[in-house]
Amino acid sequence: MATGSGRTLGVGLLGCGVVGSEVARLLTAQHDELAARIGAPLELRGIGVRRPGRARDLDLDPGLFTTDAAALVRRDDVDLVVEVIGGIEPARSLILAALENGASVVTANKALLAEDGATLFEAAEKADRDLWFEAAVAGAIPIIRPLRESLAGDRVRRVLGIVNGTTNFVLDKMSTSGAGFAEALEEAQSLGFAEADPTADIEGFDAAAKAAILASLAFHTRVAVADVHREGIAEVSAADVVSAREMGCVVKLLAICEMHELADGPAVSARVHPAMIPAEHPLASVRGAYNAVFVESEAAGQLMFYGPGAGGAPTASAVLGDLVTAARNRLSDVRGAGESAHAELDVLAMGDTITRYHIAVDVDDRPGVLAAVATEFSRHEVSIQTVRQEGRGSDAQLVVVTHPARDAALAATVDALVHLDMVRAVTSVMRVEAESQPESRS
Amino acid sequence: MATGSGRTLGVGLLGCGVVGSEVARLLTAQHDELAARIGAPLELRGIGVRRPGRARDLDLDPGLFTTDAAALVRRDDVDLVVEVIGGIEPARSLILAALENGASVVTANKALLAEDGATLFEAAEKADRDLWFEAAVAGAIPIIRPLRESLAGDRVRRVLGIVNGTTNFVLDKMSTSGAGFAEALEEAQSLGFAEADPTADIEGFDAAAKAAILASLAFHTRVAVADVHREGIAEVSAADVVSAREMGCVVKLLAICEMHELADGPAVSARVHPAMIPAEHPLASVRGAYNAVFVESEAAGQLMFYGPGAGGAPTASAVLGDLVTAARNRLSDVRGAGESAHAELDVLAMGDTITRYHIAVDVDDRPGVLAAVATEFSRHEVSIQTVRQEGRGSDAQLVVVTHPARDAALAATVDALVHLDMVRAVTSVMRVEAESQPESRS
Repeated sequence: MATGSGRTLGVGLLGCGVVGSEVARLLTAQHDELAARIGAPLELRGIGVRRPGRARDLDLDPGLFTTDAAALVRRDDVDLVVEVIGGIEPARSLILAALENGASVVTANKALLAEDGATLFEAAEKADRDLWFEAAVAGAIPIIRPLRESLAGDRVRRVLGIVNGTTNFVLDKMSTSGAGFAEALEEAQSLGFAEADPTADIEGFDAAAKAAILASLAFHTRVAVADVHREGIAEVSAADVVSAREMGCVVKLLAICEMHELADGPAVSARVHPAMIPAEHPLASVRGAYNAVFVESEAAGQLMFYGPGAGGAPTASAVLGDLVTAARNRLSDVRGAGESAHAELDVLAMGDTITRYHIAVDVDDRPGVLAAVATEFSRHEVSIQTVRQEGRGSDAQLVVVTHPARDAALAATVDALVHLDMVRAVTSVMRVEAESQPESRS
Repeated sequence: MATGSGRTLGVGLLGCGVVGSEVARLLTAQHDELAARIGAPLELRGIGVRRPGRARDLDLDPGLFTTDAAALVRRDDVDLVVEVIGGIEPARSLILAALENGASVVTANKALLAEDGATLFEAAEKADRDLWFEAAVAGAIPIIRPLRESLAGDRVRRVLGIVNGTTNFVLDKMSTSGAGFAEALEEAQSLGFAEADPTADIEGFDAAAKAAILASLAFHTRVAVADVHREGIAEVSAADVVSAREMGCVVKLLAICEMHELADGPAVSARVHPAMIPAEHPLASVRGAYNAVFVESEAAGQLMFYGPGAGGAPTASAVLGDLVTAARNRLSDVRGAGESAHAELDVLAMGDTITRYHIAVDVDDRPGVLAAVATEFSRHEVSIQTVRQEGRGSDAQLVVVTHPARDAALAATVDALVHLDMVRAVTSVMRVEAESQPESRS
């Protein structure tokens, strides 16, 4: 394929759903502006779809639609491939074929990247082509590029992300209206913020894929979705939300990626679970279906990136930003920064991660109960930060917030509490994250 | 200069103050990580300073320090120049000399870019070298790169920035403690959030330079600091802050860059002034000396970038992020995206900008006063959104919030009000910005 100015760059689009059709629309509507920014015009060569005859609200030559995506990505006049099909196959095979054929690839496929990113990155490296994926995490919010480039001279210590709009909408609704989980989910579904089968969102699968991608970038270490501990929000109760408020917190589903300095060297962890965070933390005010990613790094300090986490137009904006860069690189016959996995740090199991717990237990209202409970904590080497005794008689409750400890020790403590004579029930267990922010110097 | 792997890239550092010494420290402390990310080691060749003998808390070869910065930037073994001197001269001459000598440049110099960016960008273009400046706006917050690259396929409509930490600290203090301006400024100074001579911050000069840079990037149009309307916060009173709270708002000093669709085509504007914004807007919760930039674009929707806006380490983080990219480009002998000024849109004068005003006037408590005031608004073709009558007798006050109108018409209305018989005084005039955010779709 020729290089230089005067050239037109061919684009192959895979998928024409909500995101794909918006990408196709913008490629046409912003043709001249894109050409000015790239230095050469982009031309859509074909759109791989399953049903070419399907009615689409697009003013495009019907001849562009094809069911033979495999042939599209191998065309000599396709320099750039945009993959917005999602899922593992055929997306993976098509991306690999595109790279092998010398095309650069822009993808929004979080599931594939989190499951088998290594294969894709190696193929891009071998082909000496770009593989960009800003749209895979937090939709339109520029977070991949800042982690990959802006913070390339810094050391990231922690990433806390609200990276799933559905669960944030549900938890926000529970928090503002006092609704229970089922009721809030139903409202999310009726408003189009949750799918008919909401499992991937509610159970944290979607957030876990994004956590794997964020951790890999932040720590220059391959972290796959299998390495990510995952808990969803289905067990979060209205009582948990009230309990959080009583300690000045709100409940959020967080993707948490951390660097740990252990005695035998640094290691990383990635996990997704509901957590209580202080109401004054910037992430606490992320409302509705919005997303935000909070980054703590050694030199930059605390940064937050906020915006719409999904939707056709926002995701297409992220795809086009990548496409402009990939196109510019094709014109100069170079590639941007590839995978950065040079640190090769160990990934900790959840039990070895350091967390803090908020635990509420219904107890018998009699002398000695606090001593018995406290003994159970100390037996597991978990230190208590605060304990609050509430209610009397049959309503007696202890609310304990621990100091940071190994997650396995905290979980074992909870298991042990259940078996104590004086404990009637453990009514709420949730991790506490994101200690309050220090003031920044001017 | 040779290209390829096996090579070492030489860095010339101009300035060794708060930011420069942190850059020098990180270049040493993170030498190996930087080399891994770049593909070649960086080596500090020299540091241009005014007083080489000055005590610095840096573990560096004293021979690196030189007063002859002009010779440093012309050295054959200097591939990358970092300019953190600030101000117009000698910074401009040194940057131009560096580019002419074939070095790529990373600068944090907002004043120079806003005053004479065109000269620098043209020199970079001619030299075919990179000129990066992430650190020039909002310190460590990645905002230049997202505007330049991530949103390259989108159309930005508006940028609202809290880009000066000193003024945000002062206004936040006034808002939370009820303090007046002078008292809040004094506290900011005693805590190190404001300089002994705070003019550049308080009067909005610093924010205006950043507004010029943001508008240029957002709208692909050259906007210089001379095009930016500027008002500082010295006139903001405790009464203004109370007035804002009464309408559910907070007062912030904003840098506002807007795209306007006029009858004869699009035009842009850039301005800096205090404004009331709704308390639920994401910018309203930016506390203390933190910065944040809120971007509204056609496809991506509403994005916000938040973090520390100044300080040695955060600014150095932004500089190093740029340095990694510039170094990678030098190795591949390419340059990244240059200036994007292809749109060449007109820049509106302040009077032609569309704004909304909040106006409080002390009035005589007698029949006809509202009619007289309302007549003055309609005579200037300014439409009133709400009017609130408060107090009785000598405390009678009218609080008017207008619909959007030409700023010149609004200003003329205020001038006319002052001369009305029944108006005793115009006690508060402030623009209202950032209407409340719609919910994002999941």
